[in-house]
Amino acid sequence: MSENSKEKIVIAGAGLVGAMAACFLGRRGFEVEVYESRVDLRRHDISAGRSINLALANRGIYPLEQLGLMDRVREMMIPMRGRMIHDPKGEQNFQPYGQSEDEVIYSISRGDLNRLLLDAAEQTGNVNIHFSHRLDSVDFDTNSAVFINEETGSEVDVDFTRLVGADGAGSRVRAALVAAQDGSDSLEPLGHSYKELEIPAGRDGSFQIEKHALHIWPRGGFMLIALPNLDGSFTVTLFLPNKGEPAFETLQTREAVSRFFDEYFPGVDGLIPGLVDDFFANPTGKLGTVRCKPWHIADKAILIGDAAHAIVPFHGQGMNCGFEDCAVLDECIGQHGPDWHQVFAEYDRLRAPNGEAIADMALENYVEMRDSVNDPQFLLKKAIGFELQKRWPDLFTPRYGMVMFQRIPYAEAQRRGEINQQILDRLASGIESVEEIDWDLAETLVKKHLGSTALTA
Amino acid sequence: MSENSKEKIVIAGAGLVGAMAACFLGRRGFEVEVYESRVDLRRHDISAGRSINLALANRGIYPLEQLGLMDRVREMMIPMRGRMIHDPKGEQNFQPYGQSEDEVIYSISRGDLNRLLLDAAEQTGNVNIHFSHRLDSVDFDTNSAVFINEETGSEVDVDFTRLVGADGAGSRVRAALVAAQDGSDSLEPLGHSYKELEIPAGRDGSFQIEKHALHIWPRGGFMLIALPNLDGSFTVTLFLPNKGEPAFETLQTREAVSRFFDEYFPGVDGLIPGLVDDFFANPTGKLGTVRCKPWHIADKAILIGDAAHAIVPFHGQGMNCGFEDCAVLDECIGQHGPDWHQVFAEYDRLRAPNGEAIADMALENYVEMRDSVNDPQFLLKKAIGFELQKRWPDLFTPRYGMVMFQRIPYAEAQRRGEINQQILDRLASGIESVEEIDWDLAETLVKKHLGSTALTA
Repeated sequence: MSENSKEKIVIAGAGLVGAMAACFLGRRGFEVEVYESRVDLRRHDISAGRSINLALANRGIYPLEQLGLMDRVREMMIPMRGRMIHDPKGEQNFQPYGQSEDEVIYSISRGDLNRLLLDAAEQTGNVNIHFSHRLDSVDFDTNSAVFINEETGSEVDVDFTRLVGADGAGSRVRAALVAAQDGSDSLEPLGHSYKELEIPAGRDGSFQIEKHALHIWPRGGFMLIALPNLDGSFTVTLFLPNKGEPAFETLQTREAVSRFFDEYFPGVDGLIPGLVDDFFANPTGKLGTVRCKPWHIADKAILIGDAAHAIVPFHGQGMNCGFEDCAVLDECIGQHGPDWHQVFAEYDRLRAPNGEAIADMALENYVEMRDSVNDPQFLLKKAIGFELQKRWPDLFTPRYGMVMFQRIPYAEAQRRGEINQQILDRLASGIESVEEIDWDLAETLVKKHLGSTALTA
Repeated sequence: MSENSKEKIVIAGAGLVGAMAACFLGRRGFEVEVYESRVDLRRHDISAGRSINLALANRGIYPLEQLGLMDRVREMMIPMRGRMIHDPKGEQNFQPYGQSEDEVIYSISRGDLNRLLLDAAEQTGNVNIHFSHRLDSVDFDTNSAVFINEETGSEVDVDFTRLVGADGAGSRVRAALVAAQDGSDSLEPLGHSYKELEIPAGRDGSFQIEKHALHIWPRGGFMLIALPNLDGSFTVTLFLPNKGEPAFETLQTREAVSRFFDEYFPGVDGLIPGLVDDFFANPTGKLGTVRCKPWHIADKAILIGDAAHAIVPFHGQGMNCGFEDCAVLDECIGQHGPDWHQVFAEYDRLRAPNGEAIADMALENYVEMRDSVNDPQFLLKKAIGFELQKRWPDLFTPRYGMVMFQRIPYAEAQRRGEINQQILDRLASGIESVEEIDWDLAETLVKKHLGSTALTA
């Protein structure tokens, strides 16, 4: 421990990912100083300006287990077993995510989980969290950062031996890290934004729609979704293009919003009292993809979470990927510490390709959620995929399952997913139901194309 | 003027472009407050950390003329009539930029020009410049910005009616403007860096190499260049890949640097006393391209100069393009003011495509400078281009001339340049000198492809 106590690790950001990194690093005996621009959400009732609930999946659960936090986290989780599709006539159709009992994802409150992680970080005894301190700039020549104390408006100079950038999509650690090297940095807007609404709990905290599902009202170019909360309410999110018709730009009047929901989401206004008021009261959130390179600078700093790879939310993997970053970093420290050059280089080598892959897959999944779930051909391929998985569970896993229920690297899931897709295209060609699958062809294709790359996770 | 005096225009950055914008805006009677992160370079002897001299060309001269500053600027300028190519054997070969006396570019000191513009801005009587104030953040909901006073370390809150982002490649105005809308923002590294060195003046301030040329030692994948200064010295810049062989990463020892210059630039070490010491004492500069969208937000803010379009320096157009931004902005104010929505939208519409075009052409010109200038086929096409320009001066202008000696929009120069290239490819095919040009074909091609798009600038 004497080696670790010489380190002063500064983490910029105490959101979900920054707080988890503090848990891992504090547990190893490092002196950890966390600076967070917002106030302490354990003492103030604030909306973080981010989505209220999230989907926790396998990759996010694993690091929470390593930290011994899952007993407490489990109490916060609501299993979602699949997608409940709401068609334009108001009818519902359930599409399971997986085939076994444990192939589910979990709705969880961002705020509750963040509070738990902040407590856990402090309980390591090695973590100090400074709230209301906004990162201004970083100097990698002197290993120092300037934060602004939001209460006094004064600069605070902070030295570090290592710096962890967990300061989100607009990361200033990223800006400094990229500028100090020959790095690249890009922000690509999606062109669609989101608006959060709420379906309140029914009488006695009952759930007004199916509790154990992620609800989707897919409408081709846009969609509405809803995730359950413990108190019986659902957080509802509208995803819609910024421009065009329909689009956020044309929803400027109460009448337009009311007509829009009536036309595309009949019945929803009955579930959301004050829908139109909330629509105008709540902010419109932006969506985009941040990609950058590299994710580290020498032995000085690394990026984790959205600071390295802000992605669109359609695979529910933003937090999960960030948590996985923390676990991989911890493994790199275990393997290569205290050679921080090696720790950071290895972290970058392991994580950056996976950040690229999940960014791509999250973009693709928007089309799946808002559109493909209505397509008979898509549903047939999904059904064929489940059949292949039943027969050859060691060889064939649907891509959704690889991303959500397993921990094989995202890039590998993406690669195998492309092979899956080719196999499913072949098998679905010319048939209309799983009963017609050409099993000889299926066996040949699966064994030939996936046989040599059996899942190792 | 009463309308204009209600405006409080804040400019972030008092580099060349910010200072010029202050001149234009102050001249119109606006209250202009400029905040610059560095100290006042008129009172302190600082290197701005940027290149020491620059090439001023037609597009940059025009706004200086509009401001009535050219009489003073002209005294600072050294005409460069073409490229002096230094081959590996130490022999020199002059390639003129144009065909007429006025088709030249001018070497000028960045510091001297910046000082002149700062003085001129203050002399409008409407411009206050606050040095040592670094932009921290911008809030477009409240039209306010936070600057850090570098001397006290305190926040300074500044309200504005309009904000002009002239804060360079790492612009925080850009970050805020893009984040507040559905904007895109990317930084692409070139993969090559640069190092400045100096050839001192000879006895009595004489020039040790040709004064009226831009010197190039083109070596295929890399190059050395030199621009003259008024005192007889030359600022020398090495452009070299970061990785590979030769590359900055392999020039780590005195022996390696010495050997590198001996091998590739024989004779240069004789011109630069203490070459190896300077190589290690001077910083290595990074090169990259910034592209973003949009360049404005509502009637609140715009980006000018490198903040909107940091480009690589190989067309010598970074400053010239930024100055042109200022002139176009001033024209938009003249035409559409005080409807600032319209002013900023029109500025964006006019300038953004040109920013894209010069970014592309600057990247292409690196290949021309470091490599093509040695290629007989390139030189033949250049000679044919000059012949076409002589015969049909209203129809054919070489692309270099359109960019450097004219003010037609960059995007138009790029478009016409592509047509030029196709014509030159056809005419150069199968011949070895301008004497062999097929003039009938030339006339047909020029009149058919360029006839309907005569230059209007």
